[in-house]
Amino acid sequence: MTRIYLDNNATTALDPRVFKAMLADLSGPPANPSSTHSFGKQAKHLLTKAREQVAAFFSVSPKEVIFTSGGTESINQFLRGLPPKGHIITSTIEHAATHRTLQALESQGLKVTYLPVGLWGAPLPEHVASAIRPDTQAIALSAANSETGVKIDLEAIASIAQNQGIPFLLDAVCFIGKEPFTNHPGISAIAVSGHKFHAPKGIGALILRAPCKIAPLATGGAQEHMHRAGTENLSGILGLAEALQILATEQTPITEHLNDLRLRLEHGLKAKLPFIEIHGEGPRISNTSSIAFAGIDGETLLIHLDMAGIAVSHGSACASGAQEPSRVLTQMGISHKLAASSLRFSVGRMNTREEIDLAIDTIAKILYRK
Amino acid sequence: MTRIYLDNNATTALDPRVFKAMLADLSGPPANPSSTHSFGKQAKHLLTKAREQVAAFFSVSPKEVIFTSGGTESINQFLRGLPPKGHIITSTIEHAATHRTLQALESQGLKVTYLPVGLWGAPLPEHVASAIRPDTQAIALSAANSETGVKIDLEAIASIAQNQGIPFLLDAVCFIGKEPFTNHPGISAIAVSGHKFHAPKGIGALILRAPCKIAPLATGGAQEHMHRAGTENLSGILGLAEALQILATEQTPITEHLNDLRLRLEHGLKAKLPFIEIHGEGPRISNTSSIAFAGIDGETLLIHLDMAGIAVSHGSACASGAQEPSRVLTQMGISHKLAASSLRFSVGRMNTREEIDLAIDTIAKILYRK
Repeated sequence: MTRIYLDNNATTALDPRVFKAMLADLSGPPANPSSTHSFGKQAKHLLTKAREQVAAFFSVSPKEVIFTSGGTESINQFLRGLPPKGHIITSTIEHAATHRTLQALESQGLKVTYLPVGLWGAPLPEHVASAIRPDTQAIALSAANSETGVKIDLEAIASIAQNQGIPFLLDAVCFIGKEPFTNHPGISAIAVSGHKFHAPKGIGALILRAPCKIAPLATGGAQEHMHRAGTENLSGILGLAEALQILATEQTPITEHLNDLRLRLEHGLKAKLPFIEIHGEGPRISNTSSIAFAGIDGETLLIHLDMAGIAVSHGSACASGAQEPSRVLTQMGISHKLAASSLRFSVGRMNTREEIDLAIDTIAKILYRK
Repeated sequence: MTRIYLDNNATTALDPRVFKAMLADLSGPPANPSSTHSFGKQAKHLLTKAREQVAAFFSVSPKEVIFTSGGTESINQFLRGLPPKGHIITSTIEHAATHRTLQALESQGLKVTYLPVGLWGAPLPEHVASAIRPDTQAIALSAANSETGVKIDLEAIASIAQNQGIPFLLDAVCFIGKEPFTNHPGISAIAVSGHKFHAPKGIGALILRAPCKIAPLATGGAQEHMHRAGTENLSGILGLAEALQILATEQTPITEHLNDLRLRLEHGLKAKLPFIEIHGEGPRISNTSSIAFAGIDGETLLIHLDMAGIAVSHGSACASGAQEPSRVLTQMGISHKLAASSLRFSVGRMNTREEIDLAIDTIAKILYRK
């Protein structure tokens, strides 16, 4: 059976070029970048070069790059590294790494404003601006929602943060790799996860721009300029840097390809199943469609699709198994019933038009057979 | 130039069998173990099997295995997961992940007893017992010191912890892979780092045995039974499990080999350089020798050895570059001068007798030429 993977917001396949870059560590001599001998220096050289590549991608200095174990750690490091007081602005539809962490910090006395997003699917700049209080110490928002793909107006919100002098954490986990990213001086920190753009699982980064300062999540050795203790995951770092290098040169055609596949999927499904609805009125990122199949049980459809070899999701992977309708969709004001009828399709750069056409046919067949 | 790596306590080379085990993820289809479709189930199956293997190695239940990004995170997760009050017993010679973290927690009100170790090189069970107070909430000690290799009396200390009902965190980072490990009911938590035993950098584990409970370091998804949010580093986990599987069958001959190499090194050096002294009066682990070359500057000797292709260290890699004599040695009561004259040799299972003989000859030549 041909298997078609349309769940690229959950994770992506490793790019063979990324794998090759990782071999410099995985197949190399033993080397801890902190060691002062030649083995260590060789590792340190690889680490430094990778850090420079990542810094160049985000237009920051190498000292502003903190390698972490992934997006969740990056987000936790920022949010838990702030003083646990004052006020933070976020939205109701953030990833669990932000949502649950802010809930935990709330119980310790932090005040949090959860901006509503409505059917638009993203918090609006004017809502961010009007939520600012004298004690607001940070804004934490995702660049694009992982379930609906709806983007925030990044330029406008970053400008507000810049003008008001409020640190702004951008959860860019579902943005990088999908569309060209341009940094903005109003963005203080960026959370990134490698496995969302064809680097391995277990590596991420927190871009933390001066003068923004946070306390480390874990202490010990002096790695990562004292921001993150522990021997560096060198193979992961080499993979992350290579994956970003690829994006630096190929993002534009990749985005065109993703948009082409997504629109082909959406139009193809609409043509065969006119009753479907796509969630999110706001502009969406190139690769993501959250689609309501009214009257159909999403979980059942997901299982039928899976049996037919097509992998899609019923919300974010992190929340899978929860057996509850997506928090993102219900917070948008979508009924529990319609949310439960919805599936997320997230195409990737390794998908083809042929796969999309086959997926459309398969879905239509399953639904008309029922 | 032949390069000889005698710094296996800093990091080790990946075992080719471990690399092969990692390929199931690195070369496999895209797969997030949290996804409910077949791609995800396949990843979940690999994850579950790896967790069972790790659990079997430590004689615990799979639910007691928390995969982390390494030893530092494991130690931080335990120590920072305790309520920040009461009293903790540790020693003066712990790794920075323990030492600096407890110092940070002290500033938040935690009380800490740092047991002295003297020239013996490890805290004694009777000192642990007499440091226990009514508010002692944990004991945190390393099984073997990373610099001197001196071991604690694990059986005795674990029995004290068990009898007194005090949670005991064992930092086993420098023990696993060196000698057979037998778990003890008095050990509540075990911190492990993959890259110290030929698994990759960036993966570790915290074994946390019921009924011991700690708060998570980072929150978000429900991974690792709610103990550690974030998509699992599956390739690293597969590597860690394979590395432990290898140890489960090969540890005894590996230990014999390491002891043989270490004793050959120590006796060979003593024969040619009778003035050397080996630090630590207590029983030492199979692979580690901290050797004082009185009257010689250790840093200079390290550089000469490095130029001759031999990699050793001047303390723990995490503290490298600090340009200060080892905290471990000076805390043992060794003078700053003698500590600064000392080098750590840590052999690995990939080293050979020929390499040891060449290292002995090279060291003797360098010292007699000076």
